[in-house]
Amino acid sequence: MKITLIPSIDYIRENDIKGKTVVIIDVLRATSVIVTALANGAKEIFPVIEVEEAFSRKTQNSLLGGERKALKIEGFDLSNSPLDYKRELVTGKTIILSTTNGTKAIHYSINEQAKEVLTGSMLNAKAVAGYLAKSDSDIAILCAGTYGEFSLDDFICAGKIVWESININKSCNKIQLDDFSMAAVLAYESNRDRILEYVSNASHYKYLLSIGLKQDIEYCFSQDLIDLVPKISCSNGNMKISV
Amino acid sequence: MKITLIPSIDYIRENDIKGKTVVIIDVLRATSVIVTALANGAKEIFPVIEVEEAFSRKTQNSLLGGERKALKIEGFDLSNSPLDYKRELVTGKTIILSTTNGTKAIHYSINEQAKEVLTGSMLNAKAVAGYLAKSDSDIAILCAGTYGEFSLDDFICAGKIVWESININKSCNKIQLDDFSMAAVLAYESNRDRILEYVSNASHYKYLLSIGLKQDIEYCFSQDLIDLVPKISCSNGNMKISV
Repeated sequence: MKITLIPSIDYIRENDIKGKTVVIIDVLRATSVIVTALANGAKEIFPVIEVEEAFSRKTQNSLLGGERKALKIEGFDLSNSPLDYKRELVTGKTIILSTTNGTKAIHYSINEQAKEVLTGSMLNAKAVAGYLAKSDSDIAILCAGTYGEFSLDDFICAGKIVWESININKSCNKIQLDDFSMAAVLAYESNRDRILEYVSNASHYKYLLSIGLKQDIEYCFSQDLIDLVPKISCSNGNMKISV
Repeated sequence: MKITLIPSIDYIRENDIKGKTVVIIDVLRATSVIVTALANGAKEIFPVIEVEEAFSRKTQNSLLGGERKALKIEGFDLSNSPLDYKRELVTGKTIILSTTNGTKAIHYSINEQAKEVLTGSMLNAKAVAGYLAKSDSDIAILCAGTYGEFSLDDFICAGKIVWESININKSCNKIQLDDFSMAAVLAYESNRDRILEYVSNASHYKYLLSIGLKQDIEYCFSQDLIDLVPKISCSNGNMKISV
């Protein structure tokens, strides 16, 4: 099994995704929101690119969530803070989610004919690694990044997921890493006891901190709180994330 | 001054290079060859993409150097081992160099209208950093990579060059790093006392080792042996590297 890492959605190349198991990472914050909402009982999540589409798909049993420039969208029920997605609010609900980077990465992966698409975060890294370790497919880790740019926070999370996969598979030695995923593993290995310090160098971290989202960041970098692997399915062009 | 890092020639995006000071890194081995040849008295280096062009430009005072699949090209005088470029062979000579990754990166940078193009390696990292620290331009560090793929060896060298630039500029705090160059700096910082161990994870390292080029690798990862900054100039479509 080969693991390749795509440093951001701007860097997706032909054949990077087609036929592979793709793990999308947008730690700050879309994939942290997704796994938290599902862990708190949300029925499913519809990732949509445009705000207008989110409004047009709103029903009585759904909540609109997401962000533009990291802030709640006017008229939406929830922001892109995973701390918004409390059990009492989301249980049994459909979440219609529109974010700048993560939902785009999900759409790209489906459109580029991935074999299957999962979402990963620090919160469910070990669960995703366990899933990957059992897979026979080649794997692409797609770091969503920030406005198309590579983002340190997604990179270190990719490193953790691959590192955990290797550890699970230690005995059979069947995982081959490209240099990008190896760089992520080495970054995680050197910094696993000081992840927040490492991530404090990320430009998106600094931006979120500047608008008062320290609690969000701390929550998003909590490791292995949730034992779920969200998966994206697609029917008639409509995408759905569930477990 | 902003520093951005381009992870390999496959990942060059519009406006990544135009108008910037570009540092090309191909540690294993083109940019190590270039600085070694110039340090040993070569007059100039002509980087050419095609083998046929190298032969057509050969004169009495020139030597043909380079590789395909890391091996010497048939009919060439020198391989792509920096250890071939001994003072007694290269003094006063023009080197016509054709390699798979490094010379391509040079051509791309010139064609994409870089303001100026330099070559960096571990051998002259501090010299390049000193040059950059005095610059007012935005800087792009272009890791040549291996057949278009990101390569750990170029990445760690980029980290060293940026790290040295920051250290020189510590007092004025004028350098802004994108997350990619920050990742490289953090990788260098965590591994500066065990660079060869870090690089032993690189796929190109493993390939070169498998064909017996251990000495080359060790030489290419010697830090700051040479105090030169090779620069590329272009006249009538012909490129020349000199100091």
